[in-house]
Amino acid sequence: MAENQLPERPKDVEEDGEKGPSKSALKKAAKDKEKAEKAAKRKAAEEAQQKAAEANDISKEDYGDLPLLGSQEYIPPTEHVPRVSLSEIAEQFNDTTSLDEAGGPQIVFRGVVDNARAQGAKLAFLTFKQETDTIQAVVAESDTLSRQMVKFAGKIPAESVVLVHGVVKKPKEPVKSTTISHLELHVKKLFVLAKADQQLPMQVADAERPLPAEGEEQSEEGRPLVGLNTRLNNRVIDLRGKHNHAIFTIKDGVIALFQEFLRERKFIGINSPRLLGAPSEGGANVFEVKYFNTKAYLAQSPQLYKQMLIAARFERVMEVGPIFRAENSNTARHLTEFTGLDLEMAFEEDYHEVVSLIEELMLFIFNGLRTRYQKETELVRSVYHVDEFALPQAGKVPRLHFKEGIQMLRDDGVEIGDFDDLSTPDEKRLGALVLKKYGSDFYVLDKFPLAIRPFYTMPSAETQQAYDPKNPNAGYSNSYDFFMRGQEIMSGAQRIHDAAYLEKRMKEAVTPVDPASDGLKDYVNAFRYGCPPHAGGGIGLERIVMLWLGLPNVRLASLFPRDPARLIP
Amino acid sequence: MAENQLPERPKDVEEDGEKGPSKSALKKAAKDKEKAEKAAKRKAAEEAQQKAAEANDISKEDYGDLPLLGSQEYIPPTEHVPRVSLSEIAEQFNDTTSLDEAGGPQIVFRGVVDNARAQGAKLAFLTFKQETDTIQAVVAESDTLSRQMVKFAGKIPAESVVLVHGVVKKPKEPVKSTTISHLELHVKKLFVLAKADQQLPMQVADAERPLPAEGEEQSEEGRPLVGLNTRLNNRVIDLRGKHNHAIFTIKDGVIALFQEFLRERKFIGINSPRLLGAPSEGGANVFEVKYFNTKAYLAQSPQLYKQMLIAARFERVMEVGPIFRAENSNTARHLTEFTGLDLEMAFEEDYHEVVSLIEELMLFIFNGLRTRYQKETELVRSVYHVDEFALPQAGKVPRLHFKEGIQMLRDDGVEIGDFDDLSTPDEKRLGALVLKKYGSDFYVLDKFPLAIRPFYTMPSAETQQAYDPKNPNAGYSNSYDFFMRGQEIMSGAQRIHDAAYLEKRMKEAVTPVDPASDGLKDYVNAFRYGCPPHAGGGIGLERIVMLWLGLPNVRLASLFPRDPARLIP
Repeated sequence: MAENQLPERPKDVEEDGEKGPSKSALKKAAKDKEKAEKAAKRKAAEEAQQKAAEANDISKEDYGDLPLLGSQEYIPPTEHVPRVSLSEIAEQFNDTTSLDEAGGPQIVFRGVVDNARAQGAKLAFLTFKQETDTIQAVVAESDTLSRQMVKFAGKIPAESVVLVHGVVKKPKEPVKSTTISHLELHVKKLFVLAKADQQLPMQVADAERPLPAEGEEQSEEGRPLVGLNTRLNNRVIDLRGKHNHAIFTIKDGVIALFQEFLRERKFIGINSPRLLGAPSEGGANVFEVKYFNTKAYLAQSPQLYKQMLIAARFERVMEVGPIFRAENSNTARHLTEFTGLDLEMAFEEDYHEVVSLIEELMLFIFNGLRTRYQKETELVRSVYHVDEFALPQAGKVPRLHFKEGIQMLRDDGVEIGDFDDLSTPDEKRLGALVLKKYGSDFYVLDKFPLAIRPFYTMPSAETQQAYDPKNPNAGYSNSYDFFMRGQEIMSGAQRIHDAAYLEKRMKEAVTPVDPASDGLKDYVNAFRYGCPPHAGGGIGLERIVMLWLGLPNVRLASLFPRDPARLIP
Repeated sequence: MAENQLPERPKDVEEDGEKGPSKSALKKAAKDKEKAEKAAKRKAAEEAQQKAAEANDISKEDYGDLPLLGSQEYIPPTEHVPRVSLSEIAEQFNDTTSLDEAGGPQIVFRGVVDNARAQGAKLAFLTFKQETDTIQAVVAESDTLSRQMVKFAGKIPAESVVLVHGVVKKPKEPVKSTTISHLELHVKKLFVLAKADQQLPMQVADAERPLPAEGEEQSEEGRPLVGLNTRLNNRVIDLRGKHNHAIFTIKDGVIALFQEFLRERKFIGINSPRLLGAPSEGGANVFEVKYFNTKAYLAQSPQLYKQMLIAARFERVMEVGPIFRAENSNTARHLTEFTGLDLEMAFEEDYHEVVSLIEELMLFIFNGLRTRYQKETELVRSVYHVDEFALPQAGKVPRLHFKEGIQMLRDDGVEIGDFDDLSTPDEKRLGALVLKKYGSDFYVLDKFPLAIRPFYTMPSAETQQAYDPKNPNAGYSNSYDFFMRGQEIMSGAQRIHDAAYLEKRMKEAVTPVDPASDGLKDYVNAFRYGCPPHAGGGIGLERIVMLWLGLPNVRLASLFPRDPARLIP
């Protein structure tokens, strides 16, 4: 089909430079002229033929390209035909015995052409999509349906949005290639609402196959595997993949579950500023913004604001919002912009009250995903084959002292110091060891070394009692990370709620910060006004989604991912 | 009370320069030395006295400053006394006849000292706060409660966080100064968990009075009125005001209602990027970010991304997220960072389907605020006296053609052109006229002039049919604003869903943009792949809160507001 090919790229006129036309060019021009004349004649003949055909077209009111919706005044129809969804229809005619030869009642729906092909001049087969449903459709010449309409239907470019009138019938055999196999649609009217280009830069079907592994170019079935960059460059088409809809339904589900659990426990949602007057968390990895005649900085977390709100007597706060990290990391698990699920709360006696609450929160999210988003989870996991996520029993989340984690690694042959931070491979290894020992893909590592945590972290009681001014960052702290499949999804801690002690820690931290600086002054002052003990944490939403589903790259859990090399689309 | 005064600012030594000490300076130094010696003697005597007193103190285990929570290993008590909330207690002992002379059972709670004063040596009165509740407390010398403890209690700085053990009794007369008037608390033990400074930069009571009107310095009752800047500079204390908690409870409530309504109608929450590769909406009022070796721009709205997701077959999307506008406006209704409530949806036949849905959404929010947040609404309105918000009946939201709005203004004496944008005073005036005519503080203005709307706005059918290439921006468009109390809270429109037409409109818009530019190329391409007709809008969350409550300034509806002159705290 000629229409399926892109127009030939016009030859660059500059090829011949400014030397004037060459002989061969003149010859070619004459030939081109001849060709063009022939084409014009052919076109005129076709048009005349078409006009004659149109005049005879019994179906001419029943198909065609609709004018742009919005270009005509809308006049409400006197008798309105409510539009239906394919899933409703599939459900309604689940029992096909009710369908006689003539089929069900006429239905009208908006859908998308998945593919269209003519079979001879009298018959066209189309597949229509709507959300996750697909149905086979037949356009067949008859006393009331013209051959012209069949021709039109067979040529609609895939991905065009169409308005379809038809009746459902029982197919002779169940349709294997569509999600709705017990019905087929007999088209009565067919209009194009929005036509897609004939040639798309990538196919939706390609988007629905997994990312190629390193070096891999074809799937097991011999289909081409499209790489991540091509997908992200054409993200609008890529996102049309069914599993992508499922991924982002699940992502929104995590937010809904997070809010539901916390709102029930009297947390208030907050909106803390993203534009800061000074880099507040040490100054590294922060994006700088031109702000009128001065500079601003993008929030790396709502940390200081969450705490100031605890000092402002909001006992329990939560926030869902973008987080910015100017980290030049090009890994499969880093983004420069991601969604943070943050919470902070005052506690009564011990920061483990907060750890327990966050454990419960995570279990609530996991169980909610399991029950409410089972279909979506299975759909994505059918593309990215991963093991089921092993959940602990409620109240039995493995909670390990950092020491214990180090010991488990050592017992497994890893050489590591008592207070070393865990490398990514160490984390994954420890995750595997915990899974083996406790049967859970989710666990908590508690009491991280003080030296590798931010200045606002409360040192552990032991550490405070053994305080040595010559080595002020020795020992453990009241801080914790949460892990899924051996990867960190949350960092949190008890925070220092006393201004004088906070100032001391700011000065003696591994990376000291100035308590009197513009970005920190108000924060430190908040603790001079009487602030209760509090703890909290920040969860990376995309990481939860990635690890729950077993996606190979965190970018797949971001609609329009941002990394050091990508800012568009 | 000496403790109530800030320490004297030390004299600057440099005052005398490098000329060596003057005679008067030497004389002063001698005097200072004498003073210091006297003070040291006094201090030593006091300490000795205190030690003797402590040795005799029968209550010494029952009061004092607790060590920093977290500095000691937490040992769970064998018999745990569950902590209570004052509101529970008020409810539980609503009927005080059950309370005998000895009072109720011992209760333990964490609270805040609202004020503390000694009455002689044997008695101290305190008021404790917890959330919106306050209760009067008595610390009285007895066989089991020492005079030292009374003294300690009477001197606790206001705003300190305390742990209180006590019993509630029926007061001789109802307590007028606290929210719980039918009970008073007899303190048994009293510990300071986090001490506040003696002198705070502003008082919470000041925060709870309204902003001064222009030129006003005192409230009607003769109390000082603290200005907006002082409040925002000390926002942590300011936010402790009860009405501020109510404002932000309501703000979170609006988000919850927005999500509840839309999730029920199959909208999916999205997280679109804030960091963009190019300024996408004309280039004005956009913040520029240093992004590694290149530049990024902060999103002025999720507009283009919402639409790309419609093209990606997400039929209905919503988003709650920060919006950035580099507009150098220092008005009472502009912020450089605010929270956007965005939605976008494909529709079937006419964009008014979407207008109707958003009208319903807003009524759902208003009614939800009225029923679920009545207490908070009344609390805030008791500070900022405003009229009740006049709501229309469901389905009867006044929806005016722009023409009609202009006519109403003209009939009221305003000189204004057919296609002029409305000035802020015009908007307010029209709001008042609509209220008078339709009895509603909420209404919709439909069919704005094309020339004053963004390039992606669908021109109205009339406009498209009367298209004149010499005057391509004449006429109306399928766009609308929503108003509360005569101020705009939402802008929206049907968008152009056809790539060719969009490109044409981009080029001929009042402020043309380049369809092939980096920031717009992918956006335009999205409409080459078959995109259904769609419409949507963006709501300013802070404006809803401000106008619902009748706040005099939008900054009061932002926890930490940002404007051209403010980036901290």
